[in-house]
Amino acid sequence: MLNLSDVVEMCRVASGKKIKLKDLPTSWESGSDEVTISRHHEARRLLTEDVHQLAASQELLYSANSWSVLMVLQAMDAAGKDGTIEHVMTGVNPQGVKVVSFKQPSTEELNHDFLWRCSKALPARGEIGIFNRSYYEEVLIVKVHPELLAKQQIPGANPAKKSFWKARYKVINQFERHLVRNGTQVIKFFLHVSKQEQKRRFLDRINDPKKNWKFSPGDLVERAHWDEYMSAYEEMLSATSTKFAPWFVIPADDKATARLLVAQILANSIQKLDLKSPVLTPSQHNALVECKAKLEAEVD
Amino acid sequence: MLNLSDVVEMCRVASGKKIKLKDLPTSWESGSDEVTISRHHEARRLLTEDVHQLAASQELLYSANSWSVLMVLQAMDAAGKDGTIEHVMTGVNPQGVKVVSFKQPSTEELNHDFLWRCSKALPARGEIGIFNRSYYEEVLIVKVHPELLAKQQIPGANPAKKSFWKARYKVINQFERHLVRNGTQVIKFFLHVSKQEQKRRFLDRINDPKKNWKFSPGDLVERAHWDEYMSAYEEMLSATSTKFAPWFVIPADDKATARLLVAQILANSIQKLDLKSPVLTPSQHNALVECKAKLEAEVD
Repeated sequence: MLNLSDVVEMCRVASGKKIKLKDLPTSWESGSDEVTISRHHEARRLLTEDVHQLAASQELLYSANSWSVLMVLQAMDAAGKDGTIEHVMTGVNPQGVKVVSFKQPSTEELNHDFLWRCSKALPARGEIGIFNRSYYEEVLIVKVHPELLAKQQIPGANPAKKSFWKARYKVINQFERHLVRNGTQVIKFFLHVSKQEQKRRFLDRINDPKKNWKFSPGDLVERAHWDEYMSAYEEMLSATSTKFAPWFVIPADDKATARLLVAQILANSIQKLDLKSPVLTPSQHNALVECKAKLEAEVD
Repeated sequence: MLNLSDVVEMCRVASGKKIKLKDLPTSWESGSDEVTISRHHEARRLLTEDVHQLAASQELLYSANSWSVLMVLQAMDAAGKDGTIEHVMTGVNPQGVKVVSFKQPSTEELNHDFLWRCSKALPARGEIGIFNRSYYEEVLIVKVHPELLAKQQIPGANPAKKSFWKARYKVINQFERHLVRNGTQVIKFFLHVSKQEQKRRFLDRINDPKKNWKFSPGDLVERAHWDEYMSAYEEMLSATSTKFAPWFVIPADDKATARLLVAQILANSIQKLDLKSPVLTPSQHNALVECKAKLEAEVD
């Protein structure tokens, strides 16, 4: 029998492991043999928790004010990033959660190193920061379209060399190691959607006038590079899933299940921090007792 | 019979009107005569809407990408600001809502004019920005504790002079006028809680160990200045409730009703903007048709 931790482990990219995305499910309905199919069905059945667990974890994180959590969300277009963020936010205290969407970099941002704009947006102690896209775009879209790198005007940068990308993976790992050491839990999700499901969702956005604004013809240009993106994702996931900052590959063809799984993994990882509600020192306790007496002595 | 707009109007501070907070209800259960009591009961009964209306308004605001909304929230401690923000956020797309809490200003912030840090945090087109406290603190806590002003080191500032505060009200009105002219709807809420109810909530925070962290002995120091705060609020509300950026005084002794009312007024004020979903130009429409054909022609 599977339990929830097994399901979480099924999604984790082991540190140092070379992965192939086509071997990883985009749906809990899929599988090439009986055993896999039955495991996938069981996994899906387990994902029925509601958001209360996450809300409780976040409240503890907020009041403890020691750790912060950085949740990185990466995916192809229409994989369900926005809906996942909405789900995670449901019922939690919005003042303790900061959502940052990284779009096309500005001139000022291009004139700094590629971690700079993300660094500025990191969560403070007690907060959950959700990065909708992140510095990982620098080894994804920039790798698929190396001409974008020219805008960054980095002295001597040569995207044709493997060592250029290896250096980027390495500095990302170092950056995340630094964050974890200083009290930021880093947890990364790749919403793994199939090419077929993306097509269905694009057509839905085109056919439903209310959703037209979510679609841009540029989305098809990127879709044409699907295989190159999958390679870039594979290499990035293999190089940057570490013990201290793991990647989780979330089957995302079914939106509802994907959201539950992300919320579950996020809640678990906060619970593992073993946070304690702040305990009053004796003098703080005395101060409260005094305040109570003062309030109760007030003449209304 | 009252309708919802009547209830909203009951809370609005008319432009140019001198108000007395003790004449305004902190609860829909209160009233000094039969007629008032029955009106208050009726008002409360009307506030049963759920958050769907607000979610729909926000989605339209987001997709239209023309107006933004700045919601300013001011109140005494424990009046329910955090809970109100949580309620407003429920069910809306968190990526379109930015909550900013203004705490004690940093040295860098003190070294700039008092609108600076708020200006930097304003919502972008399409967004709702929620200010938990704001530049209004500059005519509230700073007015009650004029010694705080020294830290700002403003050449020639004299808080003993009425003209100093009048100039602050005036520049706030000018700032908000500028925002409205440039597409930011400004809507301001004062959560009006009674001194008695604040005492009850403070005692609750002291008595419940899980809520201890929300209470600080400093809260009682500010409570001792209750009457001065009420005067500062009255003067500020009277001077800065304008046609273009009105204040609403929300009876806040009952948390649930206060939240519903804020969500209702916010949704109404977005609806009044009469936003339209973006309409495709003929060439945009053609591009979509082409994309659809391309997708459908793909060989799976």
